[in-house]
Amino acid sequence: MPKISKRGEALSESPIRFLAPLARNAVKTGKKILHLNIGQPDILTPTNAVNQVKDQVSEIIAYGPSEGKMSLRKTVADYYQKFDVSIEPEDVIVTTGASEAILFTLFSCFDSGDEIIIPEPFYANYLGFSHMGGIRIRPITTTLEEGFKLPSIDTFERIIVSNTRAIFLCNPGNPTGQLYDAESLKQLAKLVKKHDLFLVVDEVYREFCYEEAFMSVLTLSEIEEHVIVLDSISKVFSSCGARVGYIVTKNKDLQGSIKKFAQLRLCPPMIGQILAEACYSDTADYLTKVKEKYNQRRLKLYERLSAIEGVKCYMPNAAFYNMVELPIDDAQEFCKWLLTDFDYKGYTIMLAPASGFYFNPALGRKQVRIAFVLDVEKLDLAMDCLEAGLKEYTELKAV
Amino acid sequence: MPKISKRGEALSESPIRFLAPLARNAVKTGKKILHLNIGQPDILTPTNAVNQVKDQVSEIIAYGPSEGKMSLRKTVADYYQKFDVSIEPEDVIVTTGASEAILFTLFSCFDSGDEIIIPEPFYANYLGFSHMGGIRIRPITTTLEEGFKLPSIDTFERIIVSNTRAIFLCNPGNPTGQLYDAESLKQLAKLVKKHDLFLVVDEVYREFCYEEAFMSVLTLSEIEEHVIVLDSISKVFSSCGARVGYIVTKNKDLQGSIKKFAQLRLCPPMIGQILAEACYSDTADYLTKVKEKYNQRRLKLYERLSAIEGVKCYMPNAAFYNMVELPIDDAQEFCKWLLTDFDYKGYTIMLAPASGFYFNPALGRKQVRIAFVLDVEKLDLAMDCLEAGLKEYTELKAV
Repeated sequence: MPKISKRGEALSESPIRFLAPLARNAVKTGKKILHLNIGQPDILTPTNAVNQVKDQVSEIIAYGPSEGKMSLRKTVADYYQKFDVSIEPEDVIVTTGASEAILFTLFSCFDSGDEIIIPEPFYANYLGFSHMGGIRIRPITTTLEEGFKLPSIDTFERIIVSNTRAIFLCNPGNPTGQLYDAESLKQLAKLVKKHDLFLVVDEVYREFCYEEAFMSVLTLSEIEEHVIVLDSISKVFSSCGARVGYIVTKNKDLQGSIKKFAQLRLCPPMIGQILAEACYSDTADYLTKVKEKYNQRRLKLYERLSAIEGVKCYMPNAAFYNMVELPIDDAQEFCKWLLTDFDYKGYTIMLAPASGFYFNPALGRKQVRIAFVLDVEKLDLAMDCLEAGLKEYTELKAV
Repeated sequence: MPKISKRGEALSESPIRFLAPLARNAVKTGKKILHLNIGQPDILTPTNAVNQVKDQVSEIIAYGPSEGKMSLRKTVADYYQKFDVSIEPEDVIVTTGASEAILFTLFSCFDSGDEIIIPEPFYANYLGFSHMGGIRIRPITTTLEEGFKLPSIDTFERIIVSNTRAIFLCNPGNPTGQLYDAESLKQLAKLVKKHDLFLVVDEVYREFCYEEAFMSVLTLSEIEEHVIVLDSISKVFSSCGARVGYIVTKNKDLQGSIKKFAQLRLCPPMIGQILAEACYSDTADYLTKVKEKYNQRRLKLYERLSAIEGVKCYMPNAAFYNMVELPIDDAQEFCKWLLTDFDYKGYTIMLAPASGFYFNPALGRKQVRIAFVLDVEKLDLAMDCLEAGLKEYTELKAV
């Protein structure tokens, strides 16, 4: 039997998805699972946009342009004005979700052996896509105690070496829910310019900032050829399954390179693009309501977590995640146990163990990521489960 | 300004898509273009399936399983019985078009520096995806004169070296329209087993075989752990824009590896998967009609091409392409000229220059790929254009 590739063998399983078989078994035994493990919003996709899909789906589902539908690229460019970002439709390349935006950006910017600096904890799949391209990640560890704030410029500069090619951020942050402030980003721009690096920023959660205004790195005009923004409709419009994302950059050489990768896979999903375009037609009302919902959950989650003995948490100010340290030794084991051996009034919860969000998994051993993608009542019940679960698990371990 | 990657720079533009800007300009000047350049069928997507999308699109377009919807995987496994292929739903992994099936297969099976043998001319994007993975293609040249038939087993065996990992075929063939016979494939199976290679076969055109029955390599039970089939709804159901494809393999290790790559990009397009599943519900009537249409076009195209002086062509027995040698020096220049400087009664034609389908582009210098994706009347008109164009171009060059 022929052997599979070493790179396939070495690739890690998704830290978010690997518990899925245990969850399926739990459901079979009649347990109800409250899902806090995955960034799948329970929010409705804009109804008008879903209706537009029904109206506009064509009788031949044909290929479209590799860079995405021009009408969608125009719509997205217009939408960015809301954030004082001035871009042309040509600066937007439509991708199959932000996932493909990550893949194309990495392959277009970096060669095998190049290094990119990423504050950790970071979105786990950055690691997998970098692995595909032979790109090395140099993490800078940020901590819960400091609210996962942007590391100092010195900290970045200290680890820049000759093959460092970029600083890669997720802002607002998954899994941390942090928002980087404008001043820190401006400082970073100077560093990026000084060392001629790319600045790649995953901004898919930009609409969910609860305390301060969001600043896109696309407004940093002095480094406009360095900046690449990754975006998606998945979270903003609760359209994860449509698989529509974007790469936004003003760097023409880079656009040229990305387009060649885009041509290879012919085009992004056409029905999803109909949905995407319609999503932007009436954002204000929809997004105000959605943001308010997430905010209530954020406050509730923090209130409940703060009251559980031994739990260390902080108040995230953006996105819909909280990174939490639990009073246990191994979050992965605990998360498994919650699915296999525990229930609270017929319910259990599914959490994402945080090891997968760290370059060095040991750093996340006691942490979990909680996605607040359930309404306040369910979140309350989920916290009852967590509280009861921690108590039972701790007693069990003490025996 | 930071430099883009060398691998991005070295990637070729799509030989099918690079003429698009010239075509847009031609349309602006009022010319009508008959598109024979791209495998975009003019056939309707099954109407029932399009209606199912309208009925079934959900109010939250949520993530689905990374491996694809289980109901779709079951449907596809059932459909394969038509070709005497017996597989389980677990053997089918849903991808974002066959494009992603190629990417995941290459990365899951091969490491940088590994070699794969592919008869040329071949689908151009195999080259681009191999380039992404640092995988070397060893071509075996097949010729129009011999109907692009499968090279002899000796020819394959002669170029197998220590890092040869697979034989990669497209059957039925794009760009050639050839169908490999069952006997040759069985011989190949022995070679694959002897040298412990993977046998990867892109079978996306399997439904369009006009003379002999199609044999899937999935029926070669003695090498079932070596075989990987790439598939898609794009051509069979005229659903190119839905971006739904499949990898089919019984190799469990490989399934495991592919699933990890699939997890990285979360899931394939969910609305496209609704369409895909519905497409299989009533294939017989739809496919009989579609195949008959393509067959009429195939015969018409051959009849017309055979009558043009200096044109060398052959009768393809599958898919919807014909590779044609033209009595000119440089097909790429001729294809450009057709768009920029020529019209026949207000029409011109767009063809795919064949250089991009060869590892050594010089081999395809005089050839073009013609996709018969227009009805017989338009195909007739397109051949009038080609005939007039060749005459005018030849006279121009003779001056």
